[in-house]
Parts: sequence; structure tokens; C-alpha cells
Amino acid sequence: MEELNQLGQQAKSAAQTLALLSTSEKNNVLEQMANALIEKSHIILAANDQDLAKAQENGISEVMQDRLRLNEERVHALADGLRQVAALSDPIGEVEKMWVNEDGLRIGKQRVPLGVIGMIFESRPNVTTDAASLCFKTGNAVILRGGKEAFHSNLALVNIMQETLEKNHLPKGAIQLVHDTTRASSTAMMKLTDYLDVLIPRGGAGLIRTVKEQATVPIIETGTGNCHVYVHQDADLEMAKNIVVNAKTQRPSVCNAMETLVVHEDVLAEFLPMVEQALAFWHVELRADERALPFLKNAIPATEADWGTEFLDYILAIKTVDHLEEAILHINRYNTKHSESIITNDYMASQKFLQQIDAAVVYINASTRFTDGFVFGFGAEIGISTQKLHARGPMGLAELTSTKYIVYGEGQVRG
Amino acid sequence: MEELNQLGQQAKSAAQTLALLSTSEKNNVLEQMANALIEKSHIILAANDQDLAKAQENGISEVMQDRLRLNEERVHALADGLRQVAALSDPIGEVEKMWVNEDGLRIGKQRVPLGVIGMIFESRPNVTTDAASLCFKTGNAVILRGGKEAFHSNLALVNIMQETLEKNHLPKGAIQLVHDTTRASSTAMMKLTDYLDVLIPRGGAGLIRTVKEQATVPIIETGTGNCHVYVHQDADLEMAKNIVVNAKTQRPSVCNAMETLVVHEDVLAEFLPMVEQALAFWHVELRADERALPFLKNAIPATEADWGTEFLDYILAIKTVDHLEEAILHINRYNTKHSESIITNDYMASQKFLQQIDAAVVYINASTRFTDGFVFGFGAEIGISTQKLHARGPMGLAELTSTKYIVYGEGQVRG
Repeated sequence: MEELNQLGQQAKSAAQTLALLSTSEKNNVLEQMANALIEKSHIILAANDQDLAKAQENGISEVMQDRLRLNEERVHALADGLRQVAALSDPIGEVEKMWVNEDGLRIGKQRVPLGVIGMIFESRPNVTTDAASLCFKTGNAVILRGGKEAFHSNLALVNIMQETLEKNHLPKGAIQLVHDTTRASSTAMMKLTDYLDVLIPRGGAGLIRTVKEQATVPIIETGTGNCHVYVHQDADLEMAKNIVVNAKTQRPSVCNAMETLVVHEDVLAEFLPMVEQALAFWHVELRADERALPFLKNAIPATEADWGTEFLDYILAIKTVDHLEEAILHINRYNTKHSESIITNDYMASQKFLQQIDAAVVYINASTRFTDGFVFGFGAEIGISTQKLHARGPMGLAELTSTKYIVYGEGQVRG
Repeated sequence: MEELNQLGQQAKSAAQTLALLSTSEKNNVLEQMANALIEKSHIILAANDQDLAKAQENGISEVMQDRLRLNEERVHALADGLRQVAALSDPIGEVEKMWVNEDGLRIGKQRVPLGVIGMIFESRPNVTTDAASLCFKTGNAVILRGGKEAFHSNLALVNIMQETLEKNHLPKGAIQLVHDTTRASSTAMMKLTDYLDVLIPRGGAGLIRTVKEQATVPIIETGTGNCHVYVHQDADLEMAKNIVVNAKTQRPSVCNAMETLVVHEDVLAEFLPMVEQALAFWHVELRADERALPFLKNAIPATEADWGTEFLDYILAIKTVDHLEEAILHINRYNTKHSESIITNDYMASQKFLQQIDAAVVYINASTRFTDGFVFGFGAEIGISTQKLHARGPMGLAELTSTKYIVYGEGQVRG
């Protein structure tokens, strides 16, 4: 596709310039971009109005409209986001380790940018400034392919950031938006092997699946989370209840929310009524297996499909197990390798769960909701990787970098 | 493809067992495998004879036959390779860092296996035992798809390793060979997204290109090396000559051999005759640009295609530049991001080259031939990555691992 090849060339060329910028040059530009967003918020809001008008015309849900909506306060939040990225320490140039080999060569492993990063994302315009700032801070060029619903908002944001780049004599190719929002541009991006060093999709399970099946560029899978909390027989049930309530209801639409409660049979009778009562406030629909049903007043029977579903809603599946091993087997079979938690005071059980569960993040006695780059202390998050290559779990600035070996010699040749 | 789906399922199941083995269990099995290879060397050599007979029948070159050939000494080398892998320290389980976040959660980043690794490789049977042992040591299941020329040899080696696995009550799915050696199995492997966590192709530029264009599983590109040595105006020319001779002739068929000499115009007259004389011993064919030609007796004119060619032979392209910046531009344009070296005593020039060259390994005053996992001190090498995601440069055991976050809580919920 012509547009993407052109964006790819410009991004690759810009990446060479970005890789050599000093930290203070990058931070300075990010601060200027933040100021520009606020100065030109009227332009952003006018563009956002266009998107919102179209959304209403198309009868898009109120929830989706809210995700799309910007106002003065939200534009300030976008600008603050850029300033926060400016304040983060810059991983580029850092030499992780350096040693002298047998030949007397001094070999160092130095952090460098990845090069050109592609992002495919859905409706929220804040991803545009978040992704652009994180990529810029790490010396990467970025090609953004946002959803058509947010096109005018995204375009306004990218235009303002590009104006700041130009004022600083930096190439516009550093931050670019794909104008074609048809499926064709998304597919072309997945095959842009000449230009993209990595493609990061952010969106629903459908998008992730399509990218995984079709992309020939390197990708980082993000975000689908079929997360479990397992309540072991000896759990502090009050603690377990609080964690289940938090993991299920604090923000049910996000990937680190819990979808299935796994319960040891010994505590069914005591624990399930506690959980049902606590979750009633949020009208959580309970879908329980045969053994759990008798202990619940308003549950419906769970189906096989429920074990593998990321509800992202006030719905909770409940699975009974005879022992820890069965809990581990169930979770490893149905999870999406995101976040899993055991509630127990049994040391051996906690260790076994920690080591045997295959997921990006495994918790003992804590809510799955903590899986987040900010909460982990990274100061940023470009997404949560659920694959094993390159990055796993919350991705901060370091995950947007690669390394190169730098070798200092004194004339050595290989014998 | 039926065969690959079956191998994939078995590998995925085996990977769960492998991930939990202790280091001593793994080392013990590797030692037993080494012993078994030697005890059953007659079976391996008989199988190798079949492959060699077929190679002769098909008129395959003597060089290729030599790559394929095994004998008692070489079988001992394979066994020694397994023992060396057993002796390496095991990265699995290592917690790279651990910290306490604001919520009081103790968060650790622990090394875990990748899961299932696929390898597509060409004729050399030693890749079979190398790859199998490195994957086994890191708790990964491996699916090996070797070239049809070495099929009987590979099968004998894998059978012996599987027998050792079975004796130790370990699943054969840990180390498997694809029996179908048609192109179809290779293509199917590139699309095996349900089972493969990563696919590592090892072979010529054609194989790498095909994998890069077709694979939808995560890959690590390896091995193509269009490497340069740049001789700056102030270089110690005696040192430069030794490095050029080493980088070009010590083993011209490998990826870290030099293909193009880049020379500053100021030293053309003095340096090129020195190089020509030194390389004459190996009958190196020189292909020089217009400005270099007058200083060489037996060179032929270089074409545009020569700048982008990995000769893997006694051929050297020679490019003249006016200044360092032109050298950097030329190298970044034509290189395969493998290994590049500058010969200079100018501090500022050396720093600029080190930072601005985009390659897995950048040298000052040393031969490109040092790019190698053993030379770097990793004790092993599964390949040399020329991509930026996950691993770059020589890959040892650590590059065959992923991480997971382990989080110790005391009932924390997200506010």
C-alpha cells in the first residue's frame, strides 16, 4: 500500500535522527508538545466534536462515546501525560553490563532504540499521545493507525506534535498517523516487514487474534486477560472476599480484571455466600459449576464456554476444584497468560502456584488488578504483553528498546 | 499439517514438565545423552552413511558432503557439546530483580522457559544436538526441522536423545524431529501459532528471507552478515591490514566474515597495495570502486550489486569514502545489521562510529570475526540474531528464556 510504504520510509529515515538525540533534547520537545496541546486545545476539541457528531449519527453506545470524548480537562491530562514521560529516566545509551573477554576485548551491552514501531489501536485518542511520547522518549519513530471513530481527534493531536517537531528541526516522520482507516491499511501494516521493527496492537481480542494470524512483522501481543483468583482451602476468607470483589468489580472492563473464581471444595459452603452477598451490590451475574450452585441463591449454571471467556463485564464464572493441582491445571488450560492469583496461607501451596502457573504475572494474596506499568513502578505503560518473546507483562520504556554490543579492541584478530 | 499439529501438541505438553525440572535433573539427562551418543555411534554413523550415499548419488559438492559427514571423532564432539551445555549455569528460576512497590507488593522478575521453540535448519547434523541440548537446558521443548540431506543422521540423533528421555520418565515431546522434509512442513511450521513460542531459522539468506516473509509465529532472524571494516585516515595501517586479512580470510564462509572494505581516500595509496599483497596469498578477488582501482594491480570494477552481497567467499569489495560520515552512511545503507568495525586512533571518530552504526555488534580496532557466543563468553550459541526484538547479536542460554513477574502480597487490593 502506497501510503504505508511512504510512512515507512519516512519513519525509517527519522529513526536515524531520533536515535542520536540527547535526553534533554527529547525532554525539551516533549515539554513543548505538552504546551502546544494546551495552547491548541480548541483545535483538538473541534476535531473531537466532528468525531463525536459522527459517533452519534452512527448510533454508537454512550460508553464508547465517552471513551472517545475529549474536553479541556482531558486535554490537560494528555499534556500532563507527555510531561510525565519527559520526567522519566531515559534508558537509551545505558550500558547494562560490560566485561573483558579472553581476547582482551571490552564488550558492552548498550540500550538502543528498536527503530520503527507500529501501533494499531481502537477508539481512545489518549493512546495517540501516550504511544507517541513513549516512542519518542526511547528514540523510536512511530506509525500510529488509530480507529476511524477517532480519526479527526488523532489527526489534530498528531498535527500539533508534528508542528513541534518541525519547530525543533526534527523530521515529521518521527510521529505519523495512517490516514487510511480502512481494513486495508491495517492489513498492510501487518506485512510492512521492510520498515517496521515491531507492531503493537492495542484493542479487543478480535484485533489481537487478527494481528497474530496475519502479521509477518514482529509483534507484541497485548492485553487479553482471562484472569483467575484461586481460593485455597486454608485462605483467610475475609481477605479472599476483598480480593475477589476488587479483582471483579473495581474496573471490570479492563484486561487485569478477574473473570473466573476458582474455589477449593472445602470452603464452598462458607465462602460462596460471603462472595454472593458482597458482589450483590454490583449486581454481578454468577455462573457456577454444579458443585458450587447449591451454595448460591441467584447463580445460573456455567457452560464450558464460560471458562474461556473474557467477560469484561459484571459477570463471574465459578469453578470448584478438589485440590491445588486441579486449580493449576484449570487455570493453565483456560487462561490467556495474563494475571493469576492464589489466596492462601499455605507456604508450599503458594510456592507451587507461583512456579507452575504460566502467566505474565502470578500473585500470592493480592488482586490481579495490580498488573499495570504505573503500579509496578515503571512510570509508564505502552501495553501489557501476553507473549513470551521480548517482553512479558506490563511494558514500560525499557521494553521499547533493543540492545547492541559495543566492543573496544586494540587490534585483536581471531586465532 | 497433521504431523506438525501432533508434534506441536506433544511439545506443548512436554514443555510443562520441562519447566519444572531442577538444574541437576536436566544436567543428568544431558550427561546420559552424551554417553548414549557415544555408545550408539555405530547407529549414528550407519545413518550418516545413508545420507552421504544419497548426497553422492545427487552429485552434491564435496564441501557440502563434508558439512554432512560424521565420524567417530565428530560424534565425540557432539557428545562433548552436550556435556559443555550441562556444565553451563542454568538461567531458569533466576530472579533478575525484586522490589517493593508503593502498595507494599514484593515484585520479582523471574526467568522462565520460552515454552516451545521451533528450529528450521539446513544440512549440518551438529545443529540437531546443539539446539536440542540448549533448549533442554533452558526447559524448552524443541521441534527440529532439519534439511532432507541430513534426515537419517538427524533421526538417529533424535531417537537416541528420546530414548534417554524415556529412560528418565520424561516425555519424548521434549525433543522432536519433523519427519516430513518437504517444503510443506517448513511452511506449516512458520504458521504454527497455536504451539510455537518462537521459530529460529538457521541457514542461508534465502531461508531467512522466506521465513521472514511467511512466518506468522514469532521468529528470531539469524545469521546473514554483510559485514564491513572501515579504515579511517589515521588508522595504524599495519593493524588495519591484519584485521582485514583476518576478517576476510580466517573463515570466509561464515556470517561474521567481512565482505566490504571501506577506505578513507587519504590512505588509499598507501593502504591498498599493502592489502592486495597480503590477500594475494589467499587469491582473494578484489572488486574496487573507481577511485580505488588505480591503486590495485589485479582488481576488477565493483558494481552496485557488490555493496549489498554477502559473498561468503574469497571475494572482497572495496569502497572509497571522503570522510567518516560517508562511511557510516554507506555501511548503514548496505549492511545486514550484523557486525561492523572501524580501525582508527581518533577518539571522536571511534565514538561516532560506535554510536551511529546500526548493527548487532560494533567494533573499534578489532576483527568482525569475534561475533560469536563462545568468544563473547556465553559458553554456547544458538545463533546470531540480526533483528532487534527479544535478542540481538550472539544468543546464548539467556536468549532462550522469557520472564514472568512473581508478586508476593498480604491481601492488597487496588484502590
